[in-house]
Amino acid sequence: MSKGIISKDEDYSQWFNDLVIKADLAEHSAVRGCMVIKPYGYSIWEKMQAALDQMFKDTGHSNAYFPLFIPKSFFSKEASHVDGFAKECAVVTHYRLKNDGNGNIIVDEDAKLEEELIVRPTSETIIWNTYRGWIQSYRDLPLLINQWANVVRWEMRTRLFLRTTEFLWQEGHTAHATAEEAIAETEQMLNVYADFAENWLALPVIKGRKTANERFAGALDTYCIEALMQDGKALQAGTSHFLGQNFAKAFDVKFANKEGKLDFVWATSWGVSTRLMGALVMAHSDDAGLVLPPKLAPTQVVIVPIFRSDEELAQISEYVTALTKELKAKNIRVKYDNRDTQRPGFKFAEYELKGIPLRVAIGGRDLANGTVELARRDTKTKETVQQAGLADVIDNLLVEIQANIYQKALNFRNENTREANSYEEFKKMLDDTPGFISAHWDGTPETEERIKQETKATIRCIPLDNKLEAGTCILSGKPSIQRVLFARAY
Amino acid sequence: MSKGIISKDEDYSQWFNDLVIKADLAEHSAVRGCMVIKPYGYSIWEKMQAALDQMFKDTGHSNAYFPLFIPKSFFSKEASHVDGFAKECAVVTHYRLKNDGNGNIIVDEDAKLEEELIVRPTSETIIWNTYRGWIQSYRDLPLLINQWANVVRWEMRTRLFLRTTEFLWQEGHTAHATAEEAIAETEQMLNVYADFAENWLALPVIKGRKTANERFAGALDTYCIEALMQDGKALQAGTSHFLGQNFAKAFDVKFANKEGKLDFVWATSWGVSTRLMGALVMAHSDDAGLVLPPKLAPTQVVIVPIFRSDEELAQISEYVTALTKELKAKNIRVKYDNRDTQRPGFKFAEYELKGIPLRVAIGGRDLANGTVELARRDTKTKETVQQAGLADVIDNLLVEIQANIYQKALNFRNENTREANSYEEFKKMLDDTPGFISAHWDGTPETEERIKQETKATIRCIPLDNKLEAGTCILSGKPSIQRVLFARAY
Repeated sequence: MSKGIISKDEDYSQWFNDLVIKADLAEHSAVRGCMVIKPYGYSIWEKMQAALDQMFKDTGHSNAYFPLFIPKSFFSKEASHVDGFAKECAVVTHYRLKNDGNGNIIVDEDAKLEEELIVRPTSETIIWNTYRGWIQSYRDLPLLINQWANVVRWEMRTRLFLRTTEFLWQEGHTAHATAEEAIAETEQMLNVYADFAENWLALPVIKGRKTANERFAGALDTYCIEALMQDGKALQAGTSHFLGQNFAKAFDVKFANKEGKLDFVWATSWGVSTRLMGALVMAHSDDAGLVLPPKLAPTQVVIVPIFRSDEELAQISEYVTALTKELKAKNIRVKYDNRDTQRPGFKFAEYELKGIPLRVAIGGRDLANGTVELARRDTKTKETVQQAGLADVIDNLLVEIQANIYQKALNFRNENTREANSYEEFKKMLDDTPGFISAHWDGTPETEERIKQETKATIRCIPLDNKLEAGTCILSGKPSIQRVLFARAY
Repeated sequence: MSKGIISKDEDYSQWFNDLVIKADLAEHSAVRGCMVIKPYGYSIWEKMQAALDQMFKDTGHSNAYFPLFIPKSFFSKEASHVDGFAKECAVVTHYRLKNDGNGNIIVDEDAKLEEELIVRPTSETIIWNTYRGWIQSYRDLPLLINQWANVVRWEMRTRLFLRTTEFLWQEGHTAHATAEEAIAETEQMLNVYADFAENWLALPVIKGRKTANERFAGALDTYCIEALMQDGKALQAGTSHFLGQNFAKAFDVKFANKEGKLDFVWATSWGVSTRLMGALVMAHSDDAGLVLPPKLAPTQVVIVPIFRSDEELAQISEYVTALTKELKAKNIRVKYDNRDTQRPGFKFAEYELKGIPLRVAIGGRDLANGTVELARRDTKTKETVQQAGLADVIDNLLVEIQANIYQKALNFRNENTREANSYEEFKKMLDDTPGFISAHWDGTPETEERIKQETKATIRCIPLDNKLEAGTCILSGKPSIQRVLFARAY
């Protein structure tokens, strides 16, 4: 327990909230459900953005920017889309304030919009309305575009990063000549997300498809990556949708194929958001604070001098200057904290809280012995190592830490993924040993809904690598051809 | 004239609009006054962002993110601020849509907000409300924060990039212990903007201060950089504001100084926006299309093969592969356009339109002679050069082009900055030889306003390096201590 953070075993939900605030990642704002992302939190988000953006560009996508506002009528054009989002929309109705004459600022009723504008909760409608002007022929396809943007969904119950009224995200919107190409794109981007989650967030994920009930509003098929948090609840970390021709039909986007025949365009969309910040915290951190994978840590190595005199500090600093130079040459993000206003113990706690992967402490005895003390954040182990070759040792350790954080999360997930073969067993597992539960389901929305109502568990996905296996549904007893993955989820 | 772009001498305003659209920078969206920034335009904006972001970080700033929405009551807390922005605000009044039972989607009147939310036109109020929780002592200062965000100002007359209802920008918001530090920050960021304008945009700018009339709503002092466009109109390219203690007082943000005494915090804010994209186009481009400074060009060099057979293309491509590798090793952004579906002439016109700084054409005869043809976009000159050492030649040429574009704009500005010594002369210059006009002004808002009403010219700034010089105001004839810079402006 550090700086007033409750233990995660005591109250996981409170632990998460405390940690996000104490580690300076984010805080609640004065605007209901909206958060302020603080500089330290934002610097981690910037690292995520940079890595994802490069992956999108490497797969041929370009960034663009579409309006924040969507005319209400656009929304209504794709029936299931409006059903999915109408209940959580911020609506702009006026474009001016005025002084009421008594010194109060009020909405100017003379400035009422003819048609209300919706603050985008997602951009399919405005983008497909735009694509109509961009696509005439097969030569204009595929159109591979991504947008980094803020979106607003009026959530009633909000939690920092996990569910906020406004959040930051990227949304890819692509257009293709054939269903096959669009499906291939949907799968490619799911793989990009899984790659990013595993190799950057150090977060093992299950790739799968959503059931019809859980699909994106307007999609024919929704792919997702699902991760397990330390409290045994699942978190959807990214989605990739095959939209078929739904939006092309709603917005009349046709192309002439090589034979000159007109057909509607095939679509995908895919997105990840600042929710990943929540996943990052929940998957790896502990009661002492954040545990950041080195690849996303704004500072990877912090060096703390332990000195009894200015002279000793000067000697230490001379060595640290040389070490820092070596580390920077290896593109390692290093910080030297030589403040004399704080004790080393205070600094140690602060950098544990902030999740800095490696701490180097160096004192007078170390100088004499040619050593330093290395402390790993992930294992909380310390060792005394030689100064000679230290930069290489650190470089290798950062790789090892990244791998270890992933492996730890993978072990946790493996230990907490179980098969249930009856509804009783299923319910008992949910309460006693929360995690992923692999169980037979009869494939009907009714059964899925009843299980959700009765247990709060949802089908997270039908894993892509699922084996077909004959069985009987845990609820209805009807025949089932495969197990699906259930969990309670964020 | 290219691809249906009108000549800029014929109709400058239409030329600009045509060019922005034909060069695929941006287009009007279905939402009144909002634009779509297309991939090519956005890729230039990304280069601007990256350069500015690095400059902000190099001067000690961190990025963060604050809510899109601002409660109406916050707005009213700083009197001149609300006066400045109330008339152009998008107002969110409801948070839900519903089906009216007849299949129409309407605003759900049961979901009316108790307090309306304003879509941020700028973020001083929400940020200073947040800073109250972040600042207690002098140890928390200075607080140096920047935000990349979208903002909305309900403009009645909009133009792509120059004035749009929604635009993208960055807004710095800093907090300091003393007025002196805040003023130093205001000036530092003005210098950062001038440096960026001159060294990246190749745009010479005048650094100056705004008159009281033209100040930011809520500022004690507004610094600006002003540039001259090719039609002789001025464009404000960036502003940096010294806000005094106005926002600290409005939001009760106090700090304890070293002596433990409480005082209000001193503030600055500063911003540049996608308006810079408009400045970039207007300052350098011509009737054939964009002219991009190499530092901001997404593609700096395009290579076009001229071939009569597949065999010849293969020989050219072999050479180009080696050249491309050399250029990429020098971090030069190069594209090889070996499409066989378009003629070289078509490609030449396309890359002129897109403003690619250098074009390399290579044909069969070049292969035999060991030469290529190099064409510069800025001067439209061509020369045949040896293949040996070509990568170095190109590398140097890109530097030369960047410098030449700047020099050309500087010459234009120098030629179009004039002194007027009477109101008649002033008015004649505005009509006959538009540009910056340096003239005496009596220092009163009344005179400034009358000149604006009568001539549409505004005081762009009082240049920082102004010499004091006794004279008489061109309008009132009253004594003046210095000339100020007038122009008609965007």
